[in-house]
Amino acid sequence: MNQQELIQKISEEMDELGIKQIKSPAKVKIERPGPINKPSDLAPYIEHTILKPEATRDQIVKLCKEAKEFGFKGVCVNPIYIEEAKKQLKGTDLIVNTVIGFPLGAGISRVKAEEVREAVKAGANELDMVIQVGLLKGKEYKLVYEDIKAVVEAAGPIPVKVILETCLLDESEKIAGCILAMRAGASFVKTATGFSKGGATIEDIRLMRAVVGGSLGVKASGGIRDYQTAKAMVEAAANRIGCSASVEIVKG
Amino acid sequence: MNQQELIQKISEEMDELGIKQIKSPAKVKIERPGPINKPSDLAPYIEHTILKPEATRDQIVKLCKEAKEFGFKGVCVNPIYIEEAKKQLKGTDLIVNTVIGFPLGAGISRVKAEEVREAVKAGANELDMVIQVGLLKGKEYKLVYEDIKAVVEAAGPIPVKVILETCLLDESEKIAGCILAMRAGASFVKTATGFSKGGATIEDIRLMRAVVGGSLGVKASGGIRDYQTAKAMVEAAANRIGCSASVEIVKG
Repeated sequence: MNQQELIQKISEEMDELGIKQIKSPAKVKIERPGPINKPSDLAPYIEHTILKPEATRDQIVKLCKEAKEFGFKGVCVNPIYIEEAKKQLKGTDLIVNTVIGFPLGAGISRVKAEEVREAVKAGANELDMVIQVGLLKGKEYKLVYEDIKAVVEAAGPIPVKVILETCLLDESEKIAGCILAMRAGASFVKTATGFSKGGATIEDIRLMRAVVGGSLGVKASGGIRDYQTAKAMVEAAANRIGCSASVEIVKG
Repeated sequence: MNQQELIQKISEEMDELGIKQIKSPAKVKIERPGPINKPSDLAPYIEHTILKPEATRDQIVKLCKEAKEFGFKGVCVNPIYIEEAKKQLKGTDLIVNTVIGFPLGAGISRVKAEEVREAVKAGANELDMVIQVGLLKGKEYKLVYEDIKAVVEAAGPIPVKVILETCLLDESEKIAGCILAMRAGASFVKTATGFSKGGATIEDIRLMRAVVGGSLGVKASGGIRDYQTAKAMVEAAANRIGCSASVEIVKG
């Protein structure tokens, strides 16, 4: 069975389970800021990211300063630092992105929804949630779908990215994860948390794009540390890059 | 300055910040099940643990079966599997422990409190929360204290363990974390999540015991994979061991 046939087959399995396409409530334009001819062309693709638990407030302030200086799309921080990041980026059009059920995804859906509401109240512009990886691997598709849908509905107009943690999944599971995210109204699919065994690969970006088509964004994240890798991700179809080595990357 | 003087100094800093000792609402006996003369003596100390995100329901069922067979204290699972574990352990006195704000600790306190309420509703008997590591390192003690207190108050009679993530902390930060946990009404301090750079060490168990005295439990977790290590943790003053290699450990 080729990839396209496999996607078709898994789609039909989802149909049989009654997993319906919902209309996404999010207001988002899926952008591709332009071709990459030099390192600084990557800046509008980049969410400058610090998610390590030991990050202090001072490091978040520095992150925001760098995001403004280098013209990144925005920053990605843990929920406790959303308010600080909003304050630092006030008066700019940089986004503050945060993470939900991160990085294991193994939380209760109602709690993820509450985390969304608190994050939005604190000022988050976008949300990256982690899929329930174990339930996906156990083929408990309906539960995985309901989990994403609960987050999407709590987020309303705020776009939701669904992190698949691709390094833990085989090809069929990656495809199933993308279909579930799409049907549950997510705006993006995203590769990895950066806290597991591996990160973004070119093959995964291509596979994810093949499943979601042109209607969803694809965010590459996990282990992207240099210009060549970041450029290759964008050229393989990524709309967004999540990384911490952003300054090094755009300096080339 | 020796260790005892350092503990005293940090305690006084907390006093000056108005960080008061609250009366813990938890109902818990801090036990030491007995001396370790052979591998199976460790069983009542052990929380048989699976927290990896890719764990399927089948693996949780197996975990519970093993916990009953080998007489462990109980199991520790992610929130999505609390109900399954309760079902599997029905009619026994084994506990179901879960994790809150895990493994980064960088979530909003109100969300952690909601996670507690949902976990308790699902049947959790004990809760291991992760401290806000970055705020602790930034010396934002009052926020760290309020975060733990929010979880303890939401938990009510259910005991709360506070995971310090010791591998990310220096000696003063470990001491501060223990004092904050104690003053905010936690029932245990615990070393590590198992998802960061390191796990439990004998020195950390001794230090944690030196800070909390006899009133709180100490749980050793992270990288405990054999009998000798587990035995050494108990002999260094641990009341509880969190590990995944539990069956190998009690077989010796």
